[in-house]
Amino acid sequence: MKKKIAILPGDGIGREIASGAAAALEAVGKRFGHEFELEYADIGGAAIDSHGTPLPESTLALAKNSDAILLGAVGGLKWDSLPSAERPERGLLAIRKELGLFANLRPIPSFKTLVQSSPLKPEIAGNVNMLIVRELTGGLYFGKPSERRGDNNEVVVDTLQYTRAEIERIVVKAFEFAKARDGRLTSVDKANVLESSRMWREIVNEKAADYPDVTVDHMYVDAAAMKLISNPGQFDVIVTENLFGDILSDEASMITGSLGMLPSASLSESGLGLYEPVHGSAPDIAGQNKANPLAMILSTALMLKYSLDMRLEGESIERAVQSVLNDGYCTPDLQMEGSTVVGTDKMIELVIERV
Amino acid sequence: MKKKIAILPGDGIGREIASGAAAALEAVGKRFGHEFELEYADIGGAAIDSHGTPLPESTLALAKNSDAILLGAVGGLKWDSLPSAERPERGLLAIRKELGLFANLRPIPSFKTLVQSSPLKPEIAGNVNMLIVRELTGGLYFGKPSERRGDNNEVVVDTLQYTRAEIERIVVKAFEFAKARDGRLTSVDKANVLESSRMWREIVNEKAADYPDVTVDHMYVDAAAMKLISNPGQFDVIVTENLFGDILSDEASMITGSLGMLPSASLSESGLGLYEPVHGSAPDIAGQNKANPLAMILSTALMLKYSLDMRLEGESIERAVQSVLNDGYCTPDLQMEGSTVVGTDKMIELVIERV
Ligand SMILES: CC(C)[C@H](C(=O)O)[C@@H](O)C(=O)O
Ligand SMILES: CC(C)[C@H](C(=O)O)[C@@H](O)C(=O)O
Repeated sequence: MKKKIAILPGDGIGREIASGAAAALEAVGKRFGHEFELEYADIGGAAIDSHGTPLPESTLALAKNSDAILLGAVGGLKWDSLPSAERPERGLLAIRKELGLFANLRPIPSFKTLVQSSPLKPEIAGNVNMLIVRELTGGLYFGKPSERRGDNNEVVVDTLQYTRAEIERIVVKAFEFAKARDGRLTSVDKANVLESSRMWREIVNEKAADYPDVTVDHMYVDAAAMKLISNPGQFDVIVTENLFGDILSDEASMITGSLGMLPSASLSESGLGLYEPVHGSAPDIAGQNKANPLAMILSTALMLKYSLDMRLEGESIERAVQSVLNDGYCTPDLQMEGSTVVGTDKMIELVIERV
Repeated sequence: MKKKIAILPGDGIGREIASGAAAALEAVGKRFGHEFELEYADIGGAAIDSHGTPLPESTLALAKNSDAILLGAVGGLKWDSLPSAERPERGLLAIRKELGLFANLRPIPSFKTLVQSSPLKPEIAGNVNMLIVRELTGGLYFGKPSERRGDNNEVVVDTLQYTRAEIERIVVKAFEFAKARDGRLTSVDKANVLESSRMWREIVNEKAADYPDVTVDHMYVDAAAMKLISNPGQFDVIVTENLFGDILSDEASMITGSLGMLPSASLSESGLGLYEPVHGSAPDIAGQNKANPLAMILSTALMLKYSLDMRLEGESIERAVQSVLNDGYCTPDLQMEGSTVVGTDKMIELVIERV
């Protein structure tokens, strides 16, 4: 099969880890007989420098005309003094909105070899296998008005807005994942305070009728923030709105012991998907061959599985990563006792030779 | 000195633990020569049953005419099927708003004797001493509109609203606490997305000029959710808006190893304050002499210190609690190896004999 992949390396360590994605795709292509046509474009700070805007038209056009999109990371000190409407993150928010990437998926597994580096006790961190499904194109992120008001701008408002259809599609997505997994869905809201959460809860209860094999429970976001630490093993699939998902998925990412291992997928209704590591652009270590490319490589695996219908191909990458860890290799960010620390390039090499 | 205290036991274990507060006040009164006049009133589910509303006028009047207010906890299965506008929690939200209790303070210490029951590793949990300052009467909790719209109610909105004055007073409060503590303030926002957060950040930076001895940093709420787990020892005072504070303070409460130990204070501009444990009404163990009264007793200590200008008196309670723990007593919720498990009544007795 021939597939066109847009690679948007972005900023900081984005470029280094993107080369890991490219290498992984080449290896998969060889082994399984596929052809991946890779096209590169700028986003974030790099795009501000080259095109004066964090999401150039040309990048968006490329993304739209591809079978899937890989993104490194955006942001860096260099652009921190720009007004917030012109910052690198705007590129990320804009591409999500423009492509309708409403479903953000963050699988949080336990890596046996990494459990020691979790801040949680091993008996708590060792038993985790959850998927967080975050709504990504609605809520406070995009609601209008978002403005200052009054004679002296002394009032400020942001708007948490959802339509029924927006809630329905993310809830259905989450039910589908729960059905294919362990059959347990936790919907997180703040229905004791927010009208939007009450509508959210109603829709979850309505849709539950279509999924008799999925057990559903509702949890307030504050309680979920506690349970993610005290008993993360209890969760299978969590579904929640945009901002709660932002907070909870980052909280949950600490459980595994390394942000450097976590991939994410953002899917649209058409099936087009954008895949990126959960971690940021880490400007402090950029260009030093120190970055962990595994989250980017695992994002590539998710892309193969979710967007390109290449399950076996994706799993071959996941197994290769697991095998490198089992063989005792790690990057500097991972604190694995007695293991061999290698740089970005070497780590990529170790993975692809196992694909 | 003579002081009038309103006690609102609320629901579930609220009544049992409120008797701990009363006992502690009696002991302090004897030892230091104060007179505490205690008056009781209903709130939450108990008030729905007795007055048909979760915050009766009479309760509010009593609260307004007291020197300080102690609250147990509200809520329970019995009232869960009521429409959300009539539920026990509404009593809590209403009393906060009516009394202008804008500053919610949640101290999160490490208890040496409890560090083993934290889900975090002891080396991470053992070193924590933070104060979370949460704005309590603004933001998404009270902003209007909060409603459904459109021909078929297919759109829902909630409004995150703040005035400059509301942000200023909570920020100043937090600076004052930081100044009296370790001089480090972390302001948490989502300024890369929300206009309200950008105004919040500006105000923090403006006020910083008045507190040259306090070092300030800004952190995004998602990053804060991570750092609270990976390195909670880094925080001194955290200040944030209402909903972020709800989520982060509950997350942080897990660090100590027991929700049953955590007090909170909610203060108004006039100095009137409401003090309550962080935990809920725990209907499953209500009436069984199993509830941990220490969070309520420590809330009483906070009341003495913050609202009644009785620092020594408050500290005598805190020392008494510490000494009971050191002597190896605990309630069933605390998992302290080799310690003697006692019931609510006995725990109260052990504390007051040490005051
Ligand atoms: C950069 C920021 C706007 C973004 C978000 O809040 O969505 C990030 O935190 C994320 O989770 O991808
Ligand atoms: C009961 C609920 C409305 C309340 C809140 O969200 O403020 C509670 O979670 C709290 O933190 O006191």
